[in-house]
Amino acid sequence: MKILLIGGTGTIGSKVAERLESENEVIIAGRSSGDVQVDITNPDAIQKLFEKIGTVDAVIVTAGSAPVKPLCDSTNEDFGEGVKSKMMGQINVALTAMNYLNKGGSVTLTSGILSDDPIPQGTILSTINGAVNGFVTGAYGEFLQKGFRINAVSPALVEDSADALGDFFPGHTPAKMEHVVDGYEKSLKTLITGQIINIE
Amino acid sequence: MKILLIGGTGTIGSKVAERLESENEVIIAGRSSGDVQVDITNPDAIQKLFEKIGTVDAVIVTAGSAPVKPLCDSTNEDFGEGVKSKMMGQINVALTAMNYLNKGGSVTLTSGILSDDPIPQGTILSTINGAVNGFVTGAYGEFLQKGFRINAVSPALVEDSADALGDFFPGHTPAKMEHVVDGYEKSLKTLITGQIINIE
Repeated sequence: MKILLIGGTGTIGSKVAERLESENEVIIAGRSSGDVQVDITNPDAIQKLFEKIGTVDAVIVTAGSAPVKPLCDSTNEDFGEGVKSKMMGQINVALTAMNYLNKGGSVTLTSGILSDDPIPQGTILSTINGAVNGFVTGAYGEFLQKGFRINAVSPALVEDSADALGDFFPGHTPAKMEHVVDGYEKSLKTLITGQIINIE
Repeated sequence: MKILLIGGTGTIGSKVAERLESENEVIIAGRSSGDVQVDITNPDAIQKLFEKIGTVDAVIVTAGSAPVKPLCDSTNEDFGEGVKSKMMGQINVALTAMNYLNKGGSVTLTSGILSDDPIPQGTILSTINGAVNGFVTGAYGEFLQKGFRINAVSPALVEDSADALGDFFPGHTPAKMEHVVDGYEKSLKTLITGQIINIE
């Protein structure tokens, strides 16, 4: 398969790449590294990326961020950062991919545990993850009409981030990275669609 | 109780007002009608609204919209309309309310069934409703620290909208309006928080 992996140089994405590279042509897109560069906060840049690489069998997005800060200090602009990046960045990739997927193609996005299992200072991510999950639920029917599938992987705090981020996630058991990567492989290779694949 | 009801002239809001008016002081805010006017897509207008009416015991939002259209025709700008209105409009009301709630105060937002039970052309609303639910889940802990509560009512297609919107919701059983209004009353008068109150 020819797979576009946006965020393939990040903590999760690099491990997804490792798993998939031996049996697939994986094109890694990063903001400033990877095989091709893209800023997913810019819808035009996403369009140009697909024009450059052409049609693909699958798109996986492990990119996108949102501010982590106390709710009483959070502004419309703080939420807007998450909206532009992890929410609309991923959604715009999915919308553009609808015109560049080969027959039977799939899109896999990334949300995260905070939509359902909140932490202090995590409300913007809870919101954005909820939006990504809602998008997948809303979109899968119209993907289906084109013969495409779409899912989201929703990981817990991953073990590889536990040293850096664990203090923000008290009492959260980190997910094993290989289980998180399993989620992307499941979305890619099975025929499930419209699923939020929770990895805990 | 002194209750600010934003969207209190709308299909659901007007029925919530009817239920609550006999025993409470209900201030109805609408875009162009009601006791006071506010455009919730403008964070400054929300701030000015609260400056004008002062502290309240509860805020209920039954306002906010998002485009309904085929996914393949939906753009970043279409999603942006829903983000500005039903998503960030409600979230900005909640953020501002944190500075204007009396002791034991509560906020009740409105999401909707499409985050979990999608219809064709409804992806933007599925996304926005998921975001509102994620916000409530993320925010309730920091509301709790201030002694406040926050919930969302997530109604199915309501019977009062069934003639106008029923064709978009094939096979959906409309919810009775009195049950939808029950959801807002439950959020207001019980001590639940962080809940998505599904009304089917």
